[in-house]
Amino acid sequence: MTVQIGLIGAGTVGGGVIKVLQKQKSILEKAGMPVRLARVADKVTSRFETLPVGDALCTADAFDVLNDASIDVVIELIGGVTFARTVVIEALNRKKHVITANKALIAEHGPEIFECAEKNGVSVYFEAAVGGGMPVIKSIREGLIGNDIVSIKTIINGTCNYILTRMSKEHLCFEDVLKQAQANGYAEADPTLDVGGGDSGHKVAIMASLISNGYVPYDKIPIEGITSISPEDISFAHELGYTIKLLGVINKAEDSEGLDVRVHPAMVKDDHILASVSDVFNAVLIDGDAVGRILIYGRGAGELPTASAVVSDVADVARNIIGKTAIRLPMSYYNSSNVVTINPIEDIVSRYYLRFSVIDEPGVLASIASFLGEQGISIASVIQKERHSDESVPVIILTHEALESGLKQALSIIEEMDYILARTQMIRIEQ
Amino acid sequence: MTVQIGLIGAGTVGGGVIKVLQKQKSILEKAGMPVRLARVADKVTSRFETLPVGDALCTADAFDVLNDASIDVVIELIGGVTFARTVVIEALNRKKHVITANKALIAEHGPEIFECAEKNGVSVYFEAAVGGGMPVIKSIREGLIGNDIVSIKTIINGTCNYILTRMSKEHLCFEDVLKQAQANGYAEADPTLDVGGGDSGHKVAIMASLISNGYVPYDKIPIEGITSISPEDISFAHELGYTIKLLGVINKAEDSEGLDVRVHPAMVKDDHILASVSDVFNAVLIDGDAVGRILIYGRGAGELPTASAVVSDVADVARNIIGKTAIRLPMSYYNSSNVVTINPIEDIVSRYYLRFSVIDEPGVLASIASFLGEQGISIASVIQKERHSDESVPVIILTHEALESGLKQALSIIEEMDYILARTQMIRIEQ
Repeated sequence: MTVQIGLIGAGTVGGGVIKVLQKQKSILEKAGMPVRLARVADKVTSRFETLPVGDALCTADAFDVLNDASIDVVIELIGGVTFARTVVIEALNRKKHVITANKALIAEHGPEIFECAEKNGVSVYFEAAVGGGMPVIKSIREGLIGNDIVSIKTIINGTCNYILTRMSKEHLCFEDVLKQAQANGYAEADPTLDVGGGDSGHKVAIMASLISNGYVPYDKIPIEGITSISPEDISFAHELGYTIKLLGVINKAEDSEGLDVRVHPAMVKDDHILASVSDVFNAVLIDGDAVGRILIYGRGAGELPTASAVVSDVADVARNIIGKTAIRLPMSYYNSSNVVTINPIEDIVSRYYLRFSVIDEPGVLASIASFLGEQGISIASVIQKERHSDESVPVIILTHEALESGLKQALSIIEEMDYILARTQMIRIEQ
Repeated sequence: MTVQIGLIGAGTVGGGVIKVLQKQKSILEKAGMPVRLARVADKVTSRFETLPVGDALCTADAFDVLNDASIDVVIELIGGVTFARTVVIEALNRKKHVITANKALIAEHGPEIFECAEKNGVSVYFEAAVGGGMPVIKSIREGLIGNDIVSIKTIINGTCNYILTRMSKEHLCFEDVLKQAQANGYAEADPTLDVGGGDSGHKVAIMASLISNGYVPYDKIPIEGITSISPEDISFAHELGYTIKLLGVINKAEDSEGLDVRVHPAMVKDDHILASVSDVFNAVLIDGDAVGRILIYGRGAGELPTASAVVSDVADVARNIIGKTAIRLPMSYYNSSNVVTINPIEDIVSRYYLRFSVIDEPGVLASIASFLGEQGISIASVIQKERHSDESVPVIILTHEALESGLKQALSIIEEMDYILARTQMIRIEQ
């Protein structure tokens, strides 16, 4: 038998999938998985002109794919969570397997989708939703099944990593680098989902769900983006031996029922393996109780890396279909009856970088130190430089480990002081 | 049904597998893969005392496991290629699936084993044979199936990487670090297979076979170990901005039918991602035509990391058995009718680090440069330091890209000169 594939959404990634499928056709066939691209749908029909497929395969109507009884597998590459959700649910209800690269859809509607797949006896694969071509999902679900995964730290948004890398190397400010990134295609016209941390949050929600065998709701994850990071922060971090990255962090806390999940800028030591992940590259650092630390590093986005992941899903689904095992990996635990509690970020214990913008006058440092001390926060190091404007002078403090609630309490008091001239910058330090 | 497992070889890794299987039992069960450790064999029966299994399961005779008709899967953790080979072939002939961590066995007897598996309609899994708990085999065979993998560069022997890291950090010589590594268990009493490069060669042979869909014979791979690397080489490399690593290199050459496969010490730029892989850690840098560069990093050996890989194979085999798909991944291409030609190392083009030990007299550098020039080898940089003994002075030359055969021709002429006082050191530079 030949596995019949329908592709819905023929944009950049869709075009890449078609290319990679055609290139690997004979490899898949030799490995016992003959596949055939049977139908391609996109409402933007001008996209068909550049595709290496015959006109007869193409349609503007996604339902031509969904209603084609000969199609075994639907690849959803539409993006967004509205029509994409409809397409996925309708495909599953027609007992078609689904492959998607849609992180937002899985993160926000995972339980509905997996329950629908389970009910219909078909599978949903989503390797491309996290980390582009890096086999992150496969590694978590299969390669590391001998482990209780106790933590994940990840740089999972290429746009943010590119911006932070260029800010760091060229001493530029966020806005300038963002403009350049938009000009050369590394950032979207509306960059909010990337630079605001939401895209990282979607991917972190998916990984957190997988390692906790439950559903980690995206909208409960504390998320901070990189828009407030200044060149000053980057150079102070550098001076202190740290690099600033947008990190996704997942920790199974020993003494808590809930999960510590969050996305925010963080300082990592220069010799930390994540500090060496630059430009558009992504990395996922996984800590398993048997395997120890594993890092997977690569390109987390782009036409061909993402297509590589989609095609690996095609191979898995084709093997399932040919082997008559419709559901090989369980769809059942990622469901709405098994929602994981996310710990409040105020409960974490971390070290902190604080940059206060203060009036240059005697007693200010003593006052700040005293307010921190009242919350049990002790200071590891201080940098106070000479005045860099008539207005304010930066005071940099690295704390020892402290409870975030205490730190925020101290900051809220300090922020009220007359000597504070601008919002205090706070960046967590990850070990 | 419950999948019945027989374990043969209850040493360090075997004990780890038992621990991890017990710990993950309920996870595997929930995921639809109930497994049961039915039998454990080891001729060293004293090992049973520390195992968390009942005496009734244990036997000194491997054939008690092989002849037990209730056993579906045999895990071979004996090591070596003699009795281990017998056990694997006998298990396959009894239509039992085989899981092994034995890199030497797969590298040296792969075709016989896979042909036997194919003939008997069962599967052989060997994730633990390469890179301990890192999902390298799974990534190559499944996660990256959308790619033509065009090159692999890898640090795949923890003992060598530990020795080179300590030599580099503490300015020690090879012999001293080896002794310490043996004392603290990071090196075997007979370290030949590790420091001579053979262990890396086994793993590289397996990866090379997988990416070329054929059989890359281990005994044809050019292999050099790290025993000749001196603290002097490491410090000159450092001075030039390079780190010395034992690398496995696989390149699909564009203009050649054969494969470039080799294991040798190599200099990599300090900012190369492989330069940051230190101590016992391993890394596999894979270059795929769709995905670009992917790095997998982790612990390549040890009780629990290796057990993690074995248990992931158990899960895969259990899924196959329960899904009634005896052979999910093809066993057929890794066979004796499909032997891959390995290109002579003399055909590679590389940059080279050369350390000549010469008499400190006028004209020596000119003579060396002239012999190199006659072979078309141009010099990129030179370091000549003041005499460090009455006898000899080191002259360091970094070449531009050159054909290895020409370089060796030049060296064989230079080595005959009276001004040469010791064997010339040659280390390839990898981009």
